[in-house]
Amino acid sequence: MFTYRLDIQYEGTRYKGWQKLKTTDLTIQSKIEMVLTRLLGETIEIQGSGRTDSGVHARNQVASFKTLRQIPSDRLLMEMNQYLPDDIVVTSIVSVDDKFHARFSAQKKTYVYQIWLASYPPVFDRHFVLDLEGKLPNIEMMKIASRSFIGTHDFKGFSTDKTKKSTVRTIEAIHFVMEGNLLRIEITGDGFLYNMVRIIVGTLLEIGLGKRDIATIEAIFQNKIRENAGETAPAKGLFLQEVIY
Amino acid sequence: MFTYRLDIQYEGTRYKGWQKLKTTDLTIQSKIEMVLTRLLGETIEIQGSGRTDSGVHARNQVASFKTLRQIPSDRLLMEMNQYLPDDIVVTSIVSVDDKFHARFSAQKKTYVYQIWLASYPPVFDRHFVLDLEGKLPNIEMMKIASRSFIGTHDFKGFSTDKTKKSTVRTIEAIHFVMEGNLLRIEITGDGFLYNMVRIIVGTLLEIGLGKRDIATIEAIFQNKIRENAGETAPAKGLFLQEVIY
Repeated sequence: MFTYRLDIQYEGTRYKGWQKLKTTDLTIQSKIEMVLTRLLGETIEIQGSGRTDSGVHARNQVASFKTLRQIPSDRLLMEMNQYLPDDIVVTSIVSVDDKFHARFSAQKKTYVYQIWLASYPPVFDRHFVLDLEGKLPNIEMMKIASRSFIGTHDFKGFSTDKTKKSTVRTIEAIHFVMEGNLLRIEITGDGFLYNMVRIIVGTLLEIGLGKRDIATIEAIFQNKIRENAGETAPAKGLFLQEVIY
Repeated sequence: MFTYRLDIQYEGTRYKGWQKLKTTDLTIQSKIEMVLTRLLGETIEIQGSGRTDSGVHARNQVASFKTLRQIPSDRLLMEMNQYLPDDIVVTSIVSVDDKFHARFSAQKKTYVYQIWLASYPPVFDRHFVLDLEGKLPNIEMMKIASRSFIGTHDFKGFSTDKTKKSTVRTIEAIHFVMEGNLLRIEITGDGFLYNMVRIIVGTLLEIGLGKRDIATIEAIFQNKIRENAGETAPAKGLFLQEVIY
């Protein structure tokens, strides 16, 4: 068996998320597996570094798969991009050690959430941002609040995850970057629960808009009640930015 | 009468260009005039700084119009963006001197042409670039060639314009900027003939890809034969970037 690593970009707008589903083939994983299976002439299953939800984008998702035969990866890259829809692109295919597994080998991930802060709507970024429609959050306050999330905590109250045994995760860094009219919130951690980034961002936004106290974060770490946290920020502002191995 | 200046952004992908047409209302000018006429309760005609072709985008187009009554421009801005389709946005409305005319008052314009240079296709920029599909032009050669266009020339051979009396224009600057996988060619001049930017870019690309000599540019200035110049680069890579008054 030979093991390969795929690096993938996608616009999630029209997909039901990363994960293969029985009810539709409109998922990123399905599209990629269908193309690989067709091109390699054997049934290929890929392992993503993790799922992204319906509507979430990826600047760099990573997946791995095993094949019976060695493949000429440059040619496969070209062919995959020829057959994939134009909102999914493979940016690299490399042969990796048999022990490499896109999910289990991942050490850290960075997600980016994009918020539009102009007094007019976004044209070119309209599928890639949450538009606050002219409301201006207090970004300094959000930065201060974000420090409460850094470190190792039980994030149960900041997730809608029902399946994970442990809801303890470590957030290493949260950075705020202004780029023109865009506020980018970059969150790096060792792993993320279902909806965790979007609920953290929703909570930070409520603080920035004066609807919530910073102290509520600590309270939710204690009482673990998801309903006490902020709204889940919309999927379209979220990008899986990087997976670190 | 009161005169107003509109600053506008649009993604041109699904439109038949800026200019109003009898055969379709799928033009930027129509969409804006319909919304203004409805909101102001009088028939409004707008003057653009110039036309953009079918599929061409604008980061900052400027238009002007006259009304019978003074208007509260902040509220009108919000209302216009509410009724316009989401691929057209008005970024500013200001009251201007009666003599202001978006076309006749324009001094200079900058267009930007975006070329994608990665070995894989663009996902997020796919509607906004010409994808060279892995071919790598000699950018240094293109820069040298671009100097031949600077200054005042008869651009008849670099245009498909049939209507203009004079085809003499002045190009002030051509800049090449690499941004990640994107090559941006920024062209500033006092005015541009029909298809002129796209034919200049097409000609520069043929030089960069070794299909054409730099000396052909001077020859086309002399013989003015459009067929001797390069192919018209596709509309989707072109942006009207700025109009200077």
